[in-house]
Amino acid sequence: MISFEVLHKDIWARTGRLKVGEKIARTPLLLPVINPHIQLITPSEMQEMGIEALITNAYIFSKSREFREEALARGLHDVLGFDGIIMTDSGAFQQSVYGDVAFSNKETVQFQRSIGSEIIVPMDIATPPDRDYSGAREELSTTMARITEALTIIDDGHLAAPVQGGIFPDLREDAAARVNETGATFCPIGAVVPLMENYRYKELVEVVLAVKRRLSPSSCVHLFGAGHPAMFALAAAMGCDVFDSAAYALYAREGRYMTPSGSLKLNELQELPCACHVCRTHTVEELKKSPEKERLLALHNLSVSLAEISRIRQAIIDGTLWEVVDERCRSHPRLLEGYRELLNHSGELVQRDRVSKRRFFYRGDESCARTEVIRYHSACLRFKPGKTCHISMNDQFPDDTESVFQFKPPFGIYPSEMAETFPIGQSEIPGWDGAMVTAGLQGVRKYIEYYPETRFTISCPQAWISTLEYSLRGLEDKYVCI
Amino acid sequence: MISFEVLHKDIWARTGRLKVGEKIARTPLLLPVINPHIQLITPSEMQEMGIEALITNAYIFSKSREFREEALARGLHDVLGFDGIIMTDSGAFQQSVYGDVAFSNKETVQFQRSIGSEIIVPMDIATPPDRDYSGAREELSTTMARITEALTIIDDGHLAAPVQGGIFPDLREDAAARVNETGATFCPIGAVVPLMENYRYKELVEVVLAVKRRLSPSSCVHLFGAGHPAMFALAAAMGCDVFDSAAYALYAREGRYMTPSGSLKLNELQELPCACHVCRTHTVEELKKSPEKERLLALHNLSVSLAEISRIRQAIIDGTLWEVVDERCRSHPRLLEGYRELLNHSGELVQRDRVSKRRFFYRGDESCARTEVIRYHSACLRFKPGKTCHISMNDQFPDDTESVFQFKPPFGIYPSEMAETFPIGQSEIPGWDGAMVTAGLQGVRKYIEYYPETRFTISCPQAWISTLEYSLRGLEDKYVCI
Repeated sequence: MISFEVLHKDIWARTGRLKVGEKIARTPLLLPVINPHIQLITPSEMQEMGIEALITNAYIFSKSREFREEALARGLHDVLGFDGIIMTDSGAFQQSVYGDVAFSNKETVQFQRSIGSEIIVPMDIATPPDRDYSGAREELSTTMARITEALTIIDDGHLAAPVQGGIFPDLREDAAARVNETGATFCPIGAVVPLMENYRYKELVEVVLAVKRRLSPSSCVHLFGAGHPAMFALAAAMGCDVFDSAAYALYAREGRYMTPSGSLKLNELQELPCACHVCRTHTVEELKKSPEKERLLALHNLSVSLAEISRIRQAIIDGTLWEVVDERCRSHPRLLEGYRELLNHSGELVQRDRVSKRRFFYRGDESCARTEVIRYHSACLRFKPGKTCHISMNDQFPDDTESVFQFKPPFGIYPSEMAETFPIGQSEIPGWDGAMVTAGLQGVRKYIEYYPETRFTISCPQAWISTLEYSLRGLEDKYVCI
Repeated sequence: MISFEVLHKDIWARTGRLKVGEKIARTPLLLPVINPHIQLITPSEMQEMGIEALITNAYIFSKSREFREEALARGLHDVLGFDGIIMTDSGAFQQSVYGDVAFSNKETVQFQRSIGSEIIVPMDIATPPDRDYSGAREELSTTMARITEALTIIDDGHLAAPVQGGIFPDLREDAAARVNETGATFCPIGAVVPLMENYRYKELVEVVLAVKRRLSPSSCVHLFGAGHPAMFALAAAMGCDVFDSAAYALYAREGRYMTPSGSLKLNELQELPCACHVCRTHTVEELKKSPEKERLLALHNLSVSLAEISRIRQAIIDGTLWEVVDERCRSHPRLLEGYRELLNHSGELVQRDRVSKRRFFYRGDESCARTEVIRYHSACLRFKPGKTCHISMNDQFPDDTESVFQFKPPFGIYPSEMAETFPIGQSEIPGWDGAMVTAGLQGVRKYIEYYPETRFTISCPQAWISTLEYSLRGLEDKYVCI
């Protein structure tokens, strides 16, 4: 039985407790990928590093002269020397590459069960981004049929139900709705690796949001193949709970050095820009020349990835995840596109976001589109203006109006009694900039339109009067600038 | 003798080699502050961590029953067990606090010399930010007199010459010019701690740029008291080469956990969001409860600080420092103010910035004000347009114009043969945004104004025509939009 409990929320992200049988793992969770033939870092070392779950490939075990019988006889946990949670991939990828029809859906789930896997994946079809609509729909129905078939064999709640549908949001939504009906708790989002490999983050956001829109909030969502720390925050913000990483090892083999803001080539480095044990106990020259280079790089890459998961968990608890997303997504222009696409959906995101957070730090124009701002622009409509209302952008207050509000961009109006409450009281902004003031005035505009009976006066710093007039164009009969 | 050799440059930052006697330290350089009475991390441990230089306080040694005679007899290096470079602070701060007149300028420099300090600081006056102009000027002349006096005692080039002047840019400029005349190579910028403690980064930028404007580029500049990794990148970008940190230890004592994007209270953490050895080998609960907590936190803080220095050095070598500054300065709105103030000076910064860099990644609107953009807007004026010229923003090219240019925001026009050169060929931008296109059109505007004899045609995507018309307002007779 697999169950999932959500503890804290921020944007669409969650921290939670994934319970698999009697074992528990905290989410967001990174599953390091283990290849039994190449163990740069052994599963028992990983357990010492605090890793609670990992993933390995059923196809490799089933074809391995060295490991097949061992795994069948002693079970995965004993063979790998790891008593945390072990998930297995079906081998769908290998099957698609080697076209090994002999290894069927039934066989893989039966094999995964018999080697003691705790999260079992059916032989789904990973629809590539270039597949056309009808092809994607056809492959999706095959995947759905295989999930149904697999459920007749794995009927104790340990089956993962993958969500496919290619790059078509409506197919992904449909797939998510049908996966919900299977009652599966653990839901991988499949076939996104080509999008990530080609920096197609804008499409990634569209696809993942489509899936999340329809999956039950109580499903534990695994972004299959997501292994680079630079995009964990973006994926978590969309509600992905589980990642898996072969990258820590694959990158190491290619001499690539991970950082949370992108990867670097070790032989192009003259410094080791990281706080991890490897980087603080070796000079860059020592690392380049070390006979252990590949293993040391893998340790570095894994440490960096785990640190990022910790940072994301802490941010979700604090309600500061937007800041981490903003920081990470500026590290590559294509990630920035993904981030901006996510912000385009703030109106939808706000519906599941939490109401109060630790703080709001303004980080640039993009902050104006954050869910906290969208929410406030509606929330402030609750404040009753009366017949006459003054909005002070410059701390000047006439004494003859029924109500008086102050102004804080990018939020808008607030009564002085709310000055200490979130977000007004907990938001830090730099000196006013155009984007921030314009956003705040959008809030004012909404407010004025909501109370057509009220006569408004606004006192505004000289420097911002033209912005005010432009932002409130068409409402000239509703307010007077004094 | 102290000498300084610049190796790589980016913005106003440099990587360099600081030579003190026969010893060499790489810059940007962090000097951990050592208090002989409280050694959370011993100098010899620091040497193992790769630390090449440190700083301690002459006043503490001179007043210490435990260490004074030891230091005079055996010398600092032997007492501390560190054979790298050791700098001593004069004790000006302590003197100002305890008003100990007995410890004079002459005495401190003589004492520093006799305990074997290699970078000796006179008893300067750290003018607080609230000191008025005449007070600041008076204190500055006292400081200058003390430098002159100290130079009669320390005449072998081991004297540091501090730059004071309070928060008044013209006094700082004057101080820098006079420090130049002393011929000192090592120049600390003093009295900036109160600005940093109060997040007054905008004023910090004004003060530091004023100093750098007048100091010789061959001076090694020490931002005295700068110890938080979140602002190293900003300071380095202004040309600060040396930092010193007591913060790694002071913060540890207060249970504060450093990150390169700000500090957190250990008690409030439920995760350790860091890749360092301490954070990967302890759970947050283990760290909170550890009898070694303070030392472990200090080790974490120091690892994070050293990693940031490494990252900055690598970025300077690659010419990607603007990206690090952008990343770090968004972590607090007041740092963002400092960053925006720095960008306001791009016109001046570009004069010492390097011409070609590894790449240009667009990270948001602020990127439009980077030196690479400013430089390009002038550099592109070299391209001759002829009598008729077409600027294509949409890859449509008429065949009847003498010259044809393409358009890439935020830079502007480029001839196809320059498509592979920096910055056009090495710049990555997300989908066009208003700030970016507006900046690119400012470049176009400058170009059109520079060639009044030429008739320009411009082909522009429908979506950007109004931006084009607004950006080129007043030039309607010079171009036709086709």
